[in-house]
Amino acid sequence: MYSFKNDYAEGAHPNILQRLIESNLEQHPGYGEDAYSVKAKQLIRQQLAKENTGIYFVTGGTQANRLVMTAFLRPHEAVISARTGHIFVHEAGAIEASGHKVITIDSPDGKLTPEAVEDILQQHSLAPHMVKPKLVYISNSTEIGTIYTKQDLTALSECCRKNQLYLFMDGARLGSALAAPTGDLTLADVARLTDAFYIGATKNGGLLGEAIVINNPQLDVDFPYILKQNGALLAKGRLLGIQFYELFRNDLYLNLARHANAAAARISDHVRSKGYKLLIASPTNQIFPIFPNTLIEDLGRQFQFYPWKKINDQHTALRLITSWTTAESMVDAFIAAIH
Amino acid sequence: MYSFKNDYAEGAHPNILQRLIESNLEQHPGYGEDAYSVKAKQLIRQQLAKENTGIYFVTGGTQANRLVMTAFLRPHEAVISARTGHIFVHEAGAIEASGHKVITIDSPDGKLTPEAVEDILQQHSLAPHMVKPKLVYISNSTEIGTIYTKQDLTALSECCRKNQLYLFMDGARLGSALAAPTGDLTLADVARLTDAFYIGATKNGGLLGEAIVINNPQLDVDFPYILKQNGALLAKGRLLGIQFYELFRNDLYLNLARHANAAAARISDHVRSKGYKLLIASPTNQIFPIFPNTLIEDLGRQFQFYPWKKINDQHTALRLITSWTTAESMVDAFIAAIH
Amino acid sequence: MYSFKNDYAEGAHPNILQRLIESNLEQHPGYGEDAYSVKAKQLIRQQLAKENTGIYFVTGGTQANRLVMTAFLRPHEAVISARTGHIFVHEAGAIEASGHKVITIDSPDGKLTPEAVEDILQQHSLAPHMVKPKLVYISNSTEIGTIYTKQDLTALSECCRKNQLYLFMDGARLGSALAAPTGDLTLADVARLTDAFYIGATKNGGLLGEAIVINNPQLDVDFPYILKQNGALLAKGRLLGIQFYELFRNDLYLNLARHANAAAARISDHVRSKGYKLLIASPTNQIFPIFPNTLIEDLGRQFQFYPWKKINDQHTALRLITSWTTAESMVDAFIAAIH
Amino acid sequence: MYSFKNDYAEGAHPNILQRLIESNLEQHPGYGEDAYSVKAKQLIRQQLAKENTGIYFVTGGTQANRLVMTAFLRPHEAVISARTGHIFVHEAGAIEASGHKVITIDSPDGKLTPEAVEDILQQHSLAPHMVKPKLVYISNSTEIGTIYTKQDLTALSECCRKNQLYLFMDGARLGSALAAPTGDLTLADVARLTDAFYIGATKNGGLLGEAIVINNPQLDVDFPYILKQNGALLAKGRLLGIQFYELFRNDLYLNLARHANAAAARISDHVRSKGYKLLIASPTNQIFPIFPNTLIEDLGRQFQFYPWKKINDQHTALRLITSWTTAESMVDAFIAAIH
Repeated sequence: MYSFKNDYAEGAHPNILQRLIESNLEQHPGYGEDAYSVKAKQLIRQQLAKENTGIYFVTGGTQANRLVMTAFLRPHEAVISARTGHIFVHEAGAIEASGHKVITIDSPDGKLTPEAVEDILQQHSLAPHMVKPKLVYISNSTEIGTIYTKQDLTALSECCRKNQLYLFMDGARLGSALAAPTGDLTLADVARLTDAFYIGATKNGGLLGEAIVINNPQLDVDFPYILKQNGALLAKGRLLGIQFYELFRNDLYLNLARHANAAAARISDHVRSKGYKLLIASPTNQIFPIFPNTLIEDLGRQFQFYPWKKINDQHTALRLITSWTTAESMVDAFIAAIH
Repeated sequence: MYSFKNDYAEGAHPNILQRLIESNLEQHPGYGEDAYSVKAKQLIRQQLAKENTGIYFVTGGTQANRLVMTAFLRPHEAVISARTGHIFVHEAGAIEASGHKVITIDSPDGKLTPEAVEDILQQHSLAPHMVKPKLVYISNSTEIGTIYTKQDLTALSECCRKNQLYLFMDGARLGSALAAPTGDLTLADVARLTDAFYIGATKNGGLLGEAIVINNPQLDVDFPYILKQNGALLAKGRLLGIQFYELFRNDLYLNLARHANAAAARISDHVRSKGYKLLIASPTNQIFPIFPNTLIEDLGRQFQFYPWKKINDQHTALRLITSWTTAESMVDAFIAAIH
Repeated sequence: MYSFKNDYAEGAHPNILQRLIESNLEQHPGYGEDAYSVKAKQLIRQQLAKENTGIYFVTGGTQANRLVMTAFLRPHEAVISARTGHIFVHEAGAIEASGHKVITIDSPDGKLTPEAVEDILQQHSLAPHMVKPKLVYISNSTEIGTIYTKQDLTALSECCRKNQLYLFMDGARLGSALAAPTGDLTLADVARLTDAFYIGATKNGGLLGEAIVINNPQLDVDFPYILKQNGALLAKGRLLGIQFYELFRNDLYLNLARHANAAAARISDHVRSKGYKLLIASPTNQIFPIFPNTLIEDLGRQFQFYPWKKINDQHTALRLITSWTTAESMVDAFIAAIH
Repeated sequence: MYSFKNDYAEGAHPNILQRLIESNLEQHPGYGEDAYSVKAKQLIRQQLAKENTGIYFVTGGTQANRLVMTAFLRPHEAVISARTGHIFVHEAGAIEASGHKVITIDSPDGKLTPEAVEDILQQHSLAPHMVKPKLVYISNSTEIGTIYTKQDLTALSECCRKNQLYLFMDGARLGSALAAPTGDLTLADVARLTDAFYIGATKNGGLLGEAIVINNPQLDVDFPYILKQNGALLAKGRLLGIQFYELFRNDLYLNLARHANAAAARISDHVRSKGYKLLIASPTNQIFPIFPNTLIEDLGRQFQFYPWKKINDQHTALRLITSWTTAESMVDAFIAAIH
């Protein structure tokens, strides 16, 4: 049965595997000093339009989030997140384990606004009895497939700078956001408007890997120590370097994300054309069609997916995720199965 | 101006000061091995109707809460609390700083129910991506003056045991709860129905001090190390021992709480008799009368208190707190000022 | 039996108790905002010859040390300490529990030198695989009774500034150091030469209390949050304020330390006059006479003390500690018992 | 220039790369539930001669060590390690960052003995002022190439069980230890004699990966939460599963280690035959020849290696490390260069 459960079910883009084979017996220094890591950082910096930005390759998103909070925050400083934020829901308390409270904002579209952030600041003014909000965590694309526009991100960035808050973007699915047809952000915009963010490879064609980018030079101090201390520094750093080297040569990163988004859009379009609704308007590779339970049962005989939310006794919203390698034929088959 | 802002504005009951003076030049072993600490624990154990319960004296409530969570929980285990819980709002992230997430329940009366707790368990079933709820934190009396009845606590205790959760009661204001006219819990009940709790002296006549009581022997392992490591073990432990020794001789602890509750009840009764409402039905020493803003302005010329909540453009709820030493004359004066 | 085991066996200087009684029914704001805390800080600042230094009262030495490390250090930053340092030996791993490694230096006299510190820096140059030494922890007087001269401390201070290390002095027994006949440091010197230190009251006439002084303004940021988060902020902060208010009025602090030192010196002098040796040359209230075991057995029938170190089969070094309230008569009795 | 600096300079054994390619488009569940991880664990369990042992794949040695300490130890519990232990020297304070003190033992051969461990226990008996030693950390092969015999490990295991200490083996180079000609331990012995250990793949032919094995069922509780919370759970767990699946099919793991050891032994033999000495008698892939500095200069023109220790003004000990893929021709060339 073909799975639309997630975007990390397969391995990696063939270019990455090919490079692993070709480079296999080259001797390289360890711990991220290898030539592939060095070159990959150069390729990324070109797209950031920044020269001295700190870039660090790590193995996963929870690790990236925890490292950033650990490095940036003093013990009493807290994080502001949407209630749907990955750090609040699905990271087993990683941020709290590193000592920091996650303050949440209820947000139907999974995004944060300056108003909501400033409201949190007001609620936390009773120093020193309450935590001190210090870092705003956003995901782009969000955990429910929505994206930040340049206007959204500019407003939030200004709010953060005005209030001396750090702005950090979880980019586990940054590719899908940047490649979204309704999006207008570039990597250079993200680098300009945030203090730090990460570029996810695991969910966009890599075997593993997230590239943490630290734009604020005051925060880019001694980060390698934090990596090492948290067990995030691979001896064979070449493995991570090669992922990003291949993804950032020839625009592969955005092309793979476009493929995933297009597959999702084809399904969304068909869902609407058949008269069904989508729970959330998502231009990315996560979509949430609302189907009758009987249809869901039929689809479940051919495909794997997660139910997302009960709508009423007869209807449920599904979560479908497409990927960098979702086969056209499977999209066709899924569409055909919607009756 | 007389203050109704809190119950820790004055020093200590004279018996305590007297004992400090009388014992001053006695030599005692340090770190809680002194004769007063030993005797105080015996007095408390008598009321608990338990022989081998672990009792540990510490200097404050935030410290007590943090110590307990640090000692009882593994890193991935989380705490369930009412959203009004002191640990969630007013401890500067102490629990998160010790590594644990605080999961909240919206509760209008500040209390937790078995249903609400089990709902949280269901929401956190996606192991290992979510934290594991392990300890239920309740306050009695709560942060808004309400109390648990024996029926409430029995139900919650059964729920916790069924679900392998620890039940911990924050007793910063346990005296006011046990002494409340509508209450039916004894110290022995609390000891029987919880895994641990603490008895607050700071807000009930002591200079400082909370007595952590660990009822569950599996949790009473190596706790002194946790005290020492967290800087909670006083060299002159006699200072804490003397607080509890005096408070638990001759029923002083409950008598002081009765005094505070009675003062609050006199004000509440008068508020109602004048046709004003109370935001919350509280039988303890925290009350929340709703007054016209003009009256509040008048009262503010004679008394200190905190505004609690805006009710509408003309009315605000106040928080008034009485204490073990609130003067009758001041209650009279306050009542007289309500017109 | 009279105890020479430690300097915290009795209560507090009577002035402190008297003030507790006189102020008992005054209403004061909580959490260190009371008038006694405010005035005590003014008195201390006068002796520091500094105006805006941060001063924070806490309940004990382990707490003070842990708070300072927690507030000052990032996760990968480590502490340098003598192997005899209290933080390394007798604080149950408090510093490590707050995340920081303690790097030790073997030092026969319990003191650190610039050479030893720079040696540690050289040994830790392999970034990011090793911790980054960042704070130099010294005790004065040390755990074995020795003291830093102005020359010692100046040299260490210059070394720290040159190497961007923080210099922190544990002053659990700072009184005995400042009052030592061979000492030449003043509180103002200590404030000028360190980044932070604390003034211990627990072992010099207070019921409890250490005054953390932060001289480096870059380190004096948001410290009250750290206090609160670690359960170190007393609701009735007046209790701490009163200790320091009384100790720093009328030179009581130094006078009490002089009393303790003098009592120890009388014993030391007699030990030497009887032909016995002292293990360490200590000008403070901790002394280490070497006695035949038969004499120790005799002394042990009248006095309590700790054996410190076996010298040979017939001889053992004792640790004797005198205090702010050691009775002359007991010193006489002890001297008389040395035969 | 050919490098003898370490055993992680190249990529992975070709079988692993081949399997990555063949399996690339298979869809697998994430987070370690994939078929390769499942099968790899079965293969390992067969060699352990245990059925229900917990096995968890992580990305590196520092991560493995930190996870184990985090999962097994309560806050006041400390680790005993040789002073040369990787956790003490080269993990940037990872263990302390997770809250635990590392107590060290000076050991010329990098190994721990029951006597040395029991000595540490005696020195830490002053509860609760000192940390509580709870876990004995050993490396096999050690950081200086030595190995534990079955007799060594049996004695240490008995000592640990008698004293209620956990015994944990860092197996970053476990292959080289098990394959050493003078060694007599099997994986099954290690599983029987320790509470937990890990099997290192990164330094023995894998791209990355260490397999944590938890033999003590009381310690194998909720470990996946710890993995997730610390960012150690790869979304594409197949990447780790495939490393171990290939290494544990057909005895590849031990064969690769034998290759590395044999290359080192050839150099050692030649060193001795030329009349030079070795600093440490190592039967594994790390060797420490002592050469004249003039010879070292010559060798340095053809090969990369680390100087290890200055012996005298004319001589220095080198550290040479061979690997699973060290070319025969390079061993020949190195030998030829020793004159």
